[in-house]
Amino acid sequence: MHHPHAASRDDAAQAASDILVRLHARAPRVHCITNAVAQSFTANVLLAAGCVPSMTLSVEETGAFVSGAQALLVNLGTFDEERRRATAIGLEAATTNKVPWVLDPVFVDRSETRARYARELIDRRPAVVRLNRAEFATLAGTAPSRDSTMAFARSNGIVVAVSGEADLIADGHRIAGISNGHPMMSKVTAMGCAGSAVLAACLAVETDALRAAIAGLAIIGVAGELAAERSSGPGSFAVAIIDALHGLNAATLNARARIS
Amino acid sequence: MHHPHAASRDDAAQAASDILVRLHARAPRVHCITNAVAQSFTANVLLAAGCVPSMTLSVEETGAFVSGAQALLVNLGTFDEERRRATAIGLEAATTNKVPWVLDPVFVDRSETRARYARELIDRRPAVVRLNRAEFATLAGTAPSRDSTMAFARSNGIVVAVSGEADLIADGHRIAGISNGHPMMSKVTAMGCAGSAVLAACLAVETDALRAAIAGLAIIGVAGELAAERSSGPGSFAVAIIDALHGLNAATLNARARIS
Amino acid sequence: MHHPHAASRDDAAQAASDILVRLHARAPRVHCITNAVAQSFTANVLLAAGCVPSMTLSVEETGAFVSGAQALLVNLGTFDEERRRATAIGLEAATTNKVPWVLDPVFVDRSETRARYARELIDRRPAVVRLNRAEFATLAGTAPSRDSTMAFARSNGIVVAVSGEADLIADGHRIAGISNGHPMMSKVTAMGCAGSAVLAACLAVETDALRAAIAGLAIIGVAGELAAERSSGPGSFAVAIIDALHGLNAATLNARARIS
Repeated sequence: MHHPHAASRDDAAQAASDILVRLHARAPRVHCITNAVAQSFTANVLLAAGCVPSMTLSVEETGAFVSGAQALLVNLGTFDEERRRATAIGLEAATTNKVPWVLDPVFVDRSETRARYARELIDRRPAVVRLNRAEFATLAGTAPSRDSTMAFARSNGIVVAVSGEADLIADGHRIAGISNGHPMMSKVTAMGCAGSAVLAACLAVETDALRAAIAGLAIIGVAGELAAERSSGPGSFAVAIIDALHGLNAATLNARARIS
Repeated sequence: MHHPHAASRDDAAQAASDILVRLHARAPRVHCITNAVAQSFTANVLLAAGCVPSMTLSVEETGAFVSGAQALLVNLGTFDEERRRATAIGLEAATTNKVPWVLDPVFVDRSETRARYARELIDRRPAVVRLNRAEFATLAGTAPSRDSTMAFARSNGIVVAVSGEADLIADGHRIAGISNGHPMMSKVTAMGCAGSAVLAACLAVETDALRAAIAGLAIIGVAGELAAERSSGPGSFAVAIIDALHGLNAATLNARARIS
Repeated sequence: MHHPHAASRDDAAQAASDILVRLHARAPRVHCITNAVAQSFTANVLLAAGCVPSMTLSVEETGAFVSGAQALLVNLGTFDEERRRATAIGLEAATTNKVPWVLDPVFVDRSETRARYARELIDRRPAVVRLNRAEFATLAGTAPSRDSTMAFARSNGIVVAVSGEADLIADGHRIAGISNGHPMMSKVTAMGCAGSAVLAACLAVETDALRAAIAGLAIIGVAGELAAERSSGPGSFAVAIIDALHGLNAATLNARARIS
């Protein structure tokens, strides 16, 4: 992290490791309003990371589930009426109960309707928006750079995590880069969605949203690297990353996190 | 099973093995009204157990699919209008055609709406209700014990299967325990739902619902133990349990079933 | 292929290999209106084959996604209102933008409502209808044979691909057989749906729909054979076929395709 008061790389990796230890110790409940394609993989990723996922979208129940959760994920991957209703109810409950939430504005670059909806959600102040470079460009109106990412974070009062070959994570004042991960991650559906769920889980145990976002992306990135060593294609990679997340300990995360 | 006329442990394991043989021989059709997170894994578990799953929730079709099935699973994991409509139609068809059905009242401990709905469904007389300890406590108003489980079964005229470190299965007169399974089963999403589907499949080939429930839980439990020997985390475990179910034969089930 | 102007077996295998090379080079976008059980596996199969899948069913977005896609899959596996609305919008967009589409009329043999709907869709002229023997018999009114398959293709002005122990693929003038594949493919849910998605992907890079259909079925069939060599049950098979698809190259496809 680069900032007048920024922690060093070692401090950031240590903070991520501490967050992982707390995840395992506290087993936070993370409610996910996510797309149908991602639900099962996301639930398994959260379980492997030591969390308790819930996924209901029912109008009667989303409020109760979000109120009892320690974090909320809102993912726009399938953008239907049922999920929009669940999102409205979920955000109401999250605001009332101060449950931190992550927005993953999947595919806003492909549909103006979706981009408009994402902008409305950003006005509701997610703790973190996690998106890829094309999605950032659509919402911010400019390509992601250190300056534009910090500016977008500052003007919206949120943490922004832009994933790519190297991830950029910024709030209005601090910025960090992460260069963990593996190209095979882009060959598995819902990998990004699951990464956002891990990020939400970290928010459940860490009030500094920037540190939580760094930890979440480092955890999934390191797990991806470990999985790549034990797999022979995207099918076995998707299995191995679940195993790697489950087996990941603080020492390995600390040693392998590449945070700048 | 403990009961004046109860079979011995050996008889119960033999009965489970016979049920497995019939599953493979008859390939029963099992219709599942189940949650979105569980659908794919449940279908694969049923296929691996030699059954033919169907999953449609359509208002026009659920009746025809249930009428042509040999068993029905109703799982409350995601509790939306579409599934409630499908459940109403499915139960109508099951009653008319005497198709035995299993209720899995997922998460009734987290939502009063859901618990109320589950109680209504129990009044419709499922052959078996399969649930965990927290869900039992919510519906029965007391923690599960041998006495409370038998009492709940008797007063509702159903078989109750409470899963936990050791499973308890009771009708109003007989009770059995099963101590198969593996802790990793709780780290895979929809594992319980898939277990309930196997239980439904056993009902398709066995009219004694207590014996069918014992067989279903023994089959999934033994498969879990075999999978644990061949996996290195919850990702590979979820894959290995499908392989283990597919490869499970009567002799292995008989030898490994721990029924008391 | 047997036809006055038909290519030899070697030519057909070479054509399939060329299509695979183009798939990898062009990474076509394939939109899938498919059932909930199949969505995740289908997306992973398309990614492994080098394509970019999209899966949204939203009324507002399906038009935009289909217009921007190079091929469309319509699968009837779960037959609900949401998917029928998405299908109406998707076909409108496909027709306007000349996006070729594949119909997979899953389970039409189990429900007259579904069969009627499938017949309406065939009147909208999919490039290819891909179905199993029982589904063909329901829609064509006769068992599949070389003659009945060609007749059904001719009278509807479509390519018909009937899967079975040996696949039959015909347009009104030409017919081919493929004998690739493995019995384990029938033990994995949504394997047929995923195969239809690969077929749609081939249509995205090949205007001769018969050649595209042959290539799609040969690709998934050869991948299935490779997966069977590296797996020990349907769980590991489902993982291995994704790896095999990802690793499949033109030389292997050409050497192993059994097209007559």
